[in-house]
Amino acid sequence: MHFHGSVLCAALLAVLPVHPLPAQSMRLASPDGRNVITVALDGGQLTYAVSHRDRAVLLPSSLGFAFRGAPRLQRGLRLLDSARAERDTSWRQPWGEVRTVRDAHGELRVRVGERNGLRREFVVIFRAFNDGVAFRYELPCQPNLGAFAISEELSEFVFADNPKTWWIPANRPAMDRYEFLYASSPLSMLDSVRTPLTLEMQGGPVVVLHEAALVDYAAMDLARVGERTLRPALSPWADGVKVRGRTPFVTPWRTIQIAATATDLVPSVLGLNLNEPSRVADTRWIEPMKYNGIWWGMHAGMYTWPSGQKHGATTENAKRYIDFAAANGLRGTLVEGWNVGWNGDWIGSYGKGFSFTRAYPDYDLTAVARYAKERGVTLVMHNETAMGVGNYERQLDSAFALYKSLGVTSVKTGYVNDRTAEGHAHTGQYMVRHHRKVIETAAKYGLSVNAHEPIMDTGERRTWPNMLSREGARGGEYNAGGPDGGNPPEHETILFFTRLLAGPMDYTPGVFDLRLKGSSGAERRPDQPRVRTTLAKQLALYVVLYSPVQMLADVVESYTNQPALQFVRDVAVDWEQTRVLNGRIGDYVTVAREAANGDWFIGAITDEEARAFDVPLDFLPAGARYTAEVYADGPGAHWLNNPQPVTISSGFVQAGTVLRIAMAPGGGQAIRLRKER
Amino acid sequence: MHFHGSVLCAALLAVLPVHPLPAQSMRLASPDGRNVITVALDGGQLTYAVSHRDRAVLLPSSLGFAFRGAPRLQRGLRLLDSARAERDTSWRQPWGEVRTVRDAHGELRVRVGERNGLRREFVVIFRAFNDGVAFRYELPCQPNLGAFAISEELSEFVFADNPKTWWIPANRPAMDRYEFLYASSPLSMLDSVRTPLTLEMQGGPVVVLHEAALVDYAAMDLARVGERTLRPALSPWADGVKVRGRTPFVTPWRTIQIAATATDLVPSVLGLNLNEPSRVADTRWIEPMKYNGIWWGMHAGMYTWPSGQKHGATTENAKRYIDFAAANGLRGTLVEGWNVGWNGDWIGSYGKGFSFTRAYPDYDLTAVARYAKERGVTLVMHNETAMGVGNYERQLDSAFALYKSLGVTSVKTGYVNDRTAEGHAHTGQYMVRHHRKVIETAAKYGLSVNAHEPIMDTGERRTWPNMLSREGARGGEYNAGGPDGGNPPEHETILFFTRLLAGPMDYTPGVFDLRLKGSSGAERRPDQPRVRTTLAKQLALYVVLYSPVQMLADVVESYTNQPALQFVRDVAVDWEQTRVLNGRIGDYVTVAREAANGDWFIGAITDEEARAFDVPLDFLPAGARYTAEVYADGPGAHWLNNPQPVTISSGFVQAGTVLRIAMAPGGGQAIRLRKER
Repeated sequence: MHFHGSVLCAALLAVLPVHPLPAQSMRLASPDGRNVITVALDGGQLTYAVSHRDRAVLLPSSLGFAFRGAPRLQRGLRLLDSARAERDTSWRQPWGEVRTVRDAHGELRVRVGERNGLRREFVVIFRAFNDGVAFRYELPCQPNLGAFAISEELSEFVFADNPKTWWIPANRPAMDRYEFLYASSPLSMLDSVRTPLTLEMQGGPVVVLHEAALVDYAAMDLARVGERTLRPALSPWADGVKVRGRTPFVTPWRTIQIAATATDLVPSVLGLNLNEPSRVADTRWIEPMKYNGIWWGMHAGMYTWPSGQKHGATTENAKRYIDFAAANGLRGTLVEGWNVGWNGDWIGSYGKGFSFTRAYPDYDLTAVARYAKERGVTLVMHNETAMGVGNYERQLDSAFALYKSLGVTSVKTGYVNDRTAEGHAHTGQYMVRHHRKVIETAAKYGLSVNAHEPIMDTGERRTWPNMLSREGARGGEYNAGGPDGGNPPEHETILFFTRLLAGPMDYTPGVFDLRLKGSSGAERRPDQPRVRTTLAKQLALYVVLYSPVQMLADVVESYTNQPALQFVRDVAVDWEQTRVLNGRIGDYVTVAREAANGDWFIGAITDEEARAFDVPLDFLPAGARYTAEVYADGPGAHWLNNPQPVTISSGFVQAGTVLRIAMAPGGGQAIRLRKER
Repeated sequence: MHFHGSVLCAALLAVLPVHPLPAQSMRLASPDGRNVITVALDGGQLTYAVSHRDRAVLLPSSLGFAFRGAPRLQRGLRLLDSARAERDTSWRQPWGEVRTVRDAHGELRVRVGERNGLRREFVVIFRAFNDGVAFRYELPCQPNLGAFAISEELSEFVFADNPKTWWIPANRPAMDRYEFLYASSPLSMLDSVRTPLTLEMQGGPVVVLHEAALVDYAAMDLARVGERTLRPALSPWADGVKVRGRTPFVTPWRTIQIAATATDLVPSVLGLNLNEPSRVADTRWIEPMKYNGIWWGMHAGMYTWPSGQKHGATTENAKRYIDFAAANGLRGTLVEGWNVGWNGDWIGSYGKGFSFTRAYPDYDLTAVARYAKERGVTLVMHNETAMGVGNYERQLDSAFALYKSLGVTSVKTGYVNDRTAEGHAHTGQYMVRHHRKVIETAAKYGLSVNAHEPIMDTGERRTWPNMLSREGARGGEYNAGGPDGGNPPEHETILFFTRLLAGPMDYTPGVFDLRLKGSSGAERRPDQPRVRTTLAKQLALYVVLYSPVQMLADVVESYTNQPALQFVRDVAVDWEQTRVLNGRIGDYVTVAREAANGDWFIGAITDEEARAFDVPLDFLPAGARYTAEVYADGPGAHWLNNPQPVTISSGFVQAGTVLRIAMAPGGGQAIRLRKER
């Protein structure tokens, strides 16, 4: 990070010619002129404002920092100099929701300094893209600002209206994570919330506040400090400091994605364009994959993580799951509860008993790994830390070296706790540094990472493509447990327009026994946690909720005699392009994605209301013919009392064909368009 | 109240024969069997559960009280005796949204007592109606429970699912009132909220929690005490006590309205049936009315409440508003800022300077009242108290006597402050008693009451029909001021299914200058507070948001050359019956109401989305013919940038005619069906 910082510092000195009389108000427009940032010095404060198609989005909002042990850096400023740049490049993702990403933006770098006193300086870099704007701070090397402790970042987002927002709460003492159901309210009703925060301005546009390139800083929540004003709320170190650093220093980008309608928000690449290019030269070892695992059985109460009579991670059980993976073309099998440390209060002790190399006696890791390898399957190694970061970091090299020797290509990490044993916040700078260390160490050993209870995605995957996916929201596991009744039918229609804008999510779809009969054979009541979708909607989620690693979440027993399983066998996990065909936040969404082989997959989901749409296939290339394999809600399907019926049919389609997509309450539809060759 | 209490106590002793071996679980069903309450003693606690059409709505929820200075009354209980009753009667409203109300219910009275210790007793009365269930506590006269101080009411509402709720926050320190925009979230995300609370269970039914007959108790908010469990949160006295009383004592009813769909919630009469019959023998002096007033001019910045250059309440100005009222058939004219006390910090001083009899020098109250009377108009006297309750109560008799002598028939009260000077909560028992005193005193002087910043309606109007209407939500005034941009287009579509279920609301519709050009002539920007509806929607609100007093809120200048004013002249404020033709909470609603003369009025409103519906007029009596006078959104109408266009048309309709109702974004439609005679 410090090396990284110095580079920017050098660059800074290089690119900023001194203008003797700099303008006091500067305008930066996106390449198409749609988005405009206006930067000004107003009463000694540096402010920025944002407009979209000549409509104000953000009114002048001030910038700066509060430090512990030093005066605020916010007032009494003068403009020192500024510089502009324009870029228009494209880059390719090794894997993703879209193959080629265009990065076209205008850039304005503004350097300001205090007129008197400490005469400290800082730089703000603004970038204007056609799909939004962003800014970040640079704190250059200077006499009166060396090592520092940020107590508050004073960036403001002053909205020019009172938009409707979809949000989850931040800093709930009981659960400092992202695993909440969404609430919706006008901005003026917010307290403290997580990002990405999606805001629908009355009469449009739709705006998403988030961050990019979170490398050595605290994750950003947003606190409302005025009727329509938000400010970053940074997760603290144990001593309350938010961010520790030393100049030269650079902050993450604050991103303001802007789209005419919610459906224009996807694919969301603004954050990717603001991360650095890949540090991994040869990415061929990084494997997007479908996987199954010994996991849902524990959530559903059939198995336990700790060893004992119901222990899920046994050699025999693992082989059954590997057999299923091999038989259905899945590349990975996850086995949770394989390693010692689960017995006893592993959460209260911050997982100090966890070994990441020693398996339970009833689980022969070496034999299982060999068994998998012989069948073309790779184990997904599970590393639950319980936020015992020290314990995990001490074992990182030995554990990852072991996994590599077993032919393993990926790990699933877990951070089930609200803070570290030392009291550092779940999403603070301390944990940001830890996650970076895990990613970089994993890359060294040819391992990819799928993090659960993570810090929110800020585009790390561009720089470290082995950062495949993460949780960071209320996933499918809540349909098996928790006292609040599982995820409501609208949940995924909100996730698509909120959490998923940050990046891939390992939502773990594919539960086929929707009433959780489980081993007992007894159906759960509607008021008990169980899956609140139809089976067709479970299939559609593979297309709608993007992730390069997609789980077949259910226990293997649930997939027997299930013709609908064919769709999950067929569906891709890496895409050439993505089209959102329709959608409304919290109500429904229909997504089409093109696989590398030219096949298209369509996923449509609805909330508790039945819906029908006519969807023109105008995105198909002229001349090409496709066989549409349709998995639709069957007769009488209903998430509440009849979730299982699926009707499978097929027919020929081509560009211009109009598909009728009808969905049951809480239902969905999954379609494969198989290209004729 | 004490007299009232004793009566119930006497009744209690009379109706409860002692059963030697009472059942430990009792079942009470609504007349149609749809709603069932199951009462049980479970481990020494009294619990109740509620089901609707055999689907669990509330799981067993316990009952009881915590006292200051005495042990909890909740555990170690045994059943003493029980009694049942069934009633099926009807009663007529002197005015209302429906003329005749049927009260058909089953009743179960359960008396329990502590096995040991103080051996205190209490009674719970359960009632099951076809439109919901309710319960209340009685604390009978007994040796070990005389004077008491309730610190918590321990009633639980344990939901059998995690419903979607529409809520406003309770006990915000900055604003202990009801004037918030609505948020929506699953029940599991609530903190502390106001009632009525509307909860849509996944897969139905829709449930509304509220209270009825709030006579001498603290108003009930709801706090979440478990993932899906709510409990009353009572507003306190200054010393923290929630409720003070002495046996015999009776609490308000806790009402649980239950309907298959949201549109079945209206008309909502459950609470009315749980209030006592009218104490006013001859109600002919009580006047539902349309009124205008010197009011919006202050909110829009043209006038001031205090005296001075821009003082709104001048004799001349009042006469202009009276002339307009007379010319347009309005019965009332409100004049705010007429009385001394507005100059200076009237909020900070809790209105101690307010006189309710002395007018400002530039306002000749006697002359204005006479001028009004000569034109068939009555003044609506305004009494803003700033929560200076003592000051107001000391002047009540002299003020109301004065108003009566001036031929005035109604007062509009105001309570702009978060608590009383003594620190009692805005909605606590102290204020409940005050509001009762005002209603009863007003009745004595032949005055009706329209309370702003009130306590929520709990059905007072049945017992005191001079309690005409109140605010108790974020009303139209917020479209003129406040930093959060006015009420969003969806606001009224939520109010209809939440706040309005409690009773009439003085929302003050009828703003015709939607961009608030006002005197300056300068339109406000969309991000500034202004009315976020089309003009047609303003008309529709007179039908959708029921109140027996409806204001023409705008300044008189805004009504000149406005053909649409005819609808407001025509629309009724008292109804024979009410039908909800369609609707979805937060999206849209269409309501039809029949006036006393056989005319029907239809109001339809939508949120920010344009919508069109085919509405069959199957509620019209066969054979009758009507002229439909339609006020629809005009070409290109849009709440954001083109709110004014209205198209007025007419045609013949009858039973079976299907009306096409098309609405613009943020729009609506208002229709008068004039019966041919």
